[in-house]
Formats: sequence, structure tokens, C-alpha cells
Amino acid sequence: MPPLTNPRADRVKAVRALSRRSVRLRTGRFLAEGPQSVREAVVHHPERVVDVYLTEQARSRHPDIVETALAAQLHLHDVTDEVLAAMCDTPTPQGLAAVCTTVTADLDDVLATRPRLLVLLTHVRDPGNAGTVIRGADAAGADAVLVSDASVDVHSPKVVRSTAGSLFHLPVVTGLPVDETVARLRAAGIRVLAADGVGETLLPDVDLGPAHAWVMGNEAWGLEPEVRDLCDEVVRVPIYGHAESLNLAMAATVCLYASAAAHNR
Amino acid sequence: MPPLTNPRADRVKAVRALSRRSVRLRTGRFLAEGPQSVREAVVHHPERVVDVYLTEQARSRHPDIVETALAAQLHLHDVTDEVLAAMCDTPTPQGLAAVCTTVTADLDDVLATRPRLLVLLTHVRDPGNAGTVIRGADAAGADAVLVSDASVDVHSPKVVRSTAGSLFHLPVVTGLPVDETVARLRAAGIRVLAADGVGETLLPDVDLGPAHAWVMGNEAWGLEPEVRDLCDEVVRVPIYGHAESLNLAMAATVCLYASAAAHNR
Repeated sequence: MPPLTNPRADRVKAVRALSRRSVRLRTGRFLAEGPQSVREAVVHHPERVVDVYLTEQARSRHPDIVETALAAQLHLHDVTDEVLAAMCDTPTPQGLAAVCTTVTADLDDVLATRPRLLVLLTHVRDPGNAGTVIRGADAAGADAVLVSDASVDVHSPKVVRSTAGSLFHLPVVTGLPVDETVARLRAAGIRVLAADGVGETLLPDVDLGPAHAWVMGNEAWGLEPEVRDLCDEVVRVPIYGHAESLNLAMAATVCLYASAAAHNR
Repeated sequence: MPPLTNPRADRVKAVRALSRRSVRLRTGRFLAEGPQSVREAVVHHPERVVDVYLTEQARSRHPDIVETALAAQLHLHDVTDEVLAAMCDTPTPQGLAAVCTTVTADLDDVLATRPRLLVLLTHVRDPGNAGTVIRGADAAGADAVLVSDASVDVHSPKVVRSTAGSLFHLPVVTGLPVDETVARLRAAGIRVLAADGVGETLLPDVDLGPAHAWVMGNEAWGLEPEVRDLCDEVVRVPIYGHAESLNLAMAATVCLYASAAAHNR
């Protein structure tokens, strides 16, 4: 098939429209941009990849992605640089993008796996923070990331980019009501730990051996008192110097790595 | 004195010009923007504050900053929102900015304090990463941050903002040649640990009790082999899940908090 060359074609506009939340909700699709995201999608969840778009240069530069996509019988479409740029949110998609379905995991299924380490994001609004926490959760070997209904859409271009492919590595459950989710975690025997600068328990003093979930709040104002009250413990990352606080992604990474260290000792 | 109202005044242009590296180098000054940065400057290093600019609203909203600045006999200048916006790099300076001197610390002075925990940034180019590492180093109680000559300018607006005030909390030594600095650290009895994904030693296996310095490399390509060879050990943050890596700021935070935990056990 000849490459798509018209950046004003309907197909191109339809892909670009996926940068809008309303369109993602309506279509159940989102766009993974760049070689890293596309590679992880194709390798870990080919069943979620609807279409792969790539430039000639990307085709020759990433034979591994092309081979894996072809083996999975995915649809590969050649496009010009101009068309790809018109499709993507990032100014530098590096020649590759993939339309994927937004199918997310189910809390029941996650709990059925008897998870040992979970993260619950509540009211997280900054895409970079949300994506970085998902990446950190993946790196620390968390079993899933749970995202509250009041948080940023994890399929927005900036979140997807910040996860650096981790969105395709572990189950991400979205749209969860916080109260009910905390109750269900506790009912499943999972200790629920609120991470918050007001906590009286210091991170090094917590027994992270048993199964637990970290609840992380908004980047600016932390966790709501009502949410903290629902948790088993409110835990503070100690500040040894003069800094007022750590940012959300840093605090989450420190907590998650403390958990990982306890689980892998 | 009546407030400055003309955004095209020479004084305003001179402040705005501090967003350019060449102007900062020539004048030895930089701009701290927003209440958090200005507060930390005024509290921790009033001797480095040349001028404070604030709007009427900020004056009434931040009496603590005004009081501390007046007590230190600093120059407070009332400005309109329009003038402050014209001075600042950030679109939302929240009514406050301070011109400060870029005087940085000296490696000799840092070594004379017999430091136990240091960070050396080499070839770090992304302002957000550099600032976040400085903030993390502060939080973890590091004694100083050392910055190589090939790294981003720590007085650029984006770095200053990302440090969230930490730039004024601990000594930051800039413009260091990497080879010589590593040699001087080792001569001072400080173990030099390269943090790099290619390391064979895992973070949990390192004895972080003795004085040490973490050497962090470029966000995209890590540490140069020649730099790694100069270090006592190349250490890898373990990846427990499927993530390919952590980003620089996350890796640095995990390493620094492991050090802090060892020093504060």
C-alpha cells in the first residue's frame, strides 16, 4: 500500500482527535506515541493494538518492532513525517505511533491475584506525576496501579509518554471511587498506607513485609483528611535536610522502593 | 515609593534579561521567582538577595516574607502584576521575585566540613531533572550538590523553580571538571559511587555507612564509560518489574534515600 501522505485526511484527523478525552471515552481508543510506547504495546499487549503508523525511516530503524507487529498480524501503515506529526500530540514522535484500545483492568481481577504491592492514586492531576508514578510502580514490581475517578486520564498523551511504556506492563484500574476502593482493599486483607507529609509514622518504621497499598494524593494539597482517616496508617517520608517536602513522584518512588526492598530481602 | 508600573522600563528589562545565561554570567545574578523561592532566599541567604519585587497582593498575603526581608534590611520594591509578569520567566510568579547573587560554594570549603553524603551531576542537561535532584539531595540530608562544567546552569529559571527552594538550603558547587573532582573526592576519603543501569552491584548490596558521593549522568545516555571507570563502584538500582529504567530524578532519589537511611539508622 502506498504511504498516507495527506495530513488533512479524515483518518489522520480521527487519530489526532484521540488527544481529546471526550473522543477517547467515546471510542475506547488512545494513541501511544514514539518507539518506546509502541514497542511495549506491541510486545506486551498486541491484542490492544488497532493500528500502527510508521515512517519509512522508523521502519528501517526499528526492525524489532516491525517484526513483532507483523508476527502478531497487526496492521502497519506507512505514513510520511508530515502525516505522523499531524496525528501526534508530541512534536517528536520519532516516526512511530499506535492506536490502542483503552481496555483497563478490573479491581476484582487484580485482587484475585492476591497482590502484595499496589498503588492507589487519588486526585492526581498532573500528567507527568501520574505517568512517573506508574513507571515507578512498574520498576518497583507493584502488582497494579489503581486510579481514582477524580484523577487525570491515564490515556492522555502526556501520561502515556511519562510512563515510558510501563502503561503496558502492569494492570492499571481506572475510575475507582476512593472510599469504596479502600474498603475493598482492607476487606481483602491488604494494609492501606496513606503517604502524606502530615503522617506521624516514619517510612523506615513501617513493616512493609505484609501485602499493602500506598495511597497517594494530590500534588499540591496531599490527601484529603477523610481519605487519610480511612487508611490503616498515615506514613511520612522523613526529610533529613531543609526541604519542605518531596514532590509526589519522588515520594511515591521512595515509598515503593522501600516496599520492594522489604519484599525482596 | 510609588510602585513600578512601566513594564518597558530599563530596570524591568534588566531583571528579565537574567533569564539569559550570558547575562547571569556577566552580572553574577539570577532571579528567584515565586513565594517559595523568595522565602527560602530571604530566610537562608539574605546576604545574597539584591532586590525583592512584590505586588500589593503578595505583600498582604506573605507577611512572613516581608517581615523577614525588612528585618534583614533588604530592598523591597512594589510592582504591578504587569511589571512582575514582564520580569519573570514563569507565567505565574504569584506576586514575588528576588534578584539574587549567583555566588556558589567552593569544593574546598565543602570538603573541609568532612561531608558524609554528596551528589555529583555530570552532563545533566534537563532543568527539571537537575532541580529535582537538588531538591531530593536536600530532602535526603546531603551535605552538598556538585555540578560538572558540562551540566545545565543551576541558576536558570526552570532549575531554580524545580528545586522548590532547595537551591538556598545546601551548598551547590558548579563548573567542576569531572575527572579532577572524582580524584579529589577519593583523595578526601570519600567513596565515589556511579549510579548507572549498567552497574553490576545492586543498590541494596552496597554498604552506604561510610562517607560517599553519588555520581549521576546524563538523562538519556547515562554515565560515560570513562567516568564510570574513575569511580569506586558502579551501582544499579534494581528493577523488580518490567520497566526498562527509572528516570534520572527517580534513580537519584532512591539512591539518596538509601544513603540517608543508612546514615540515620
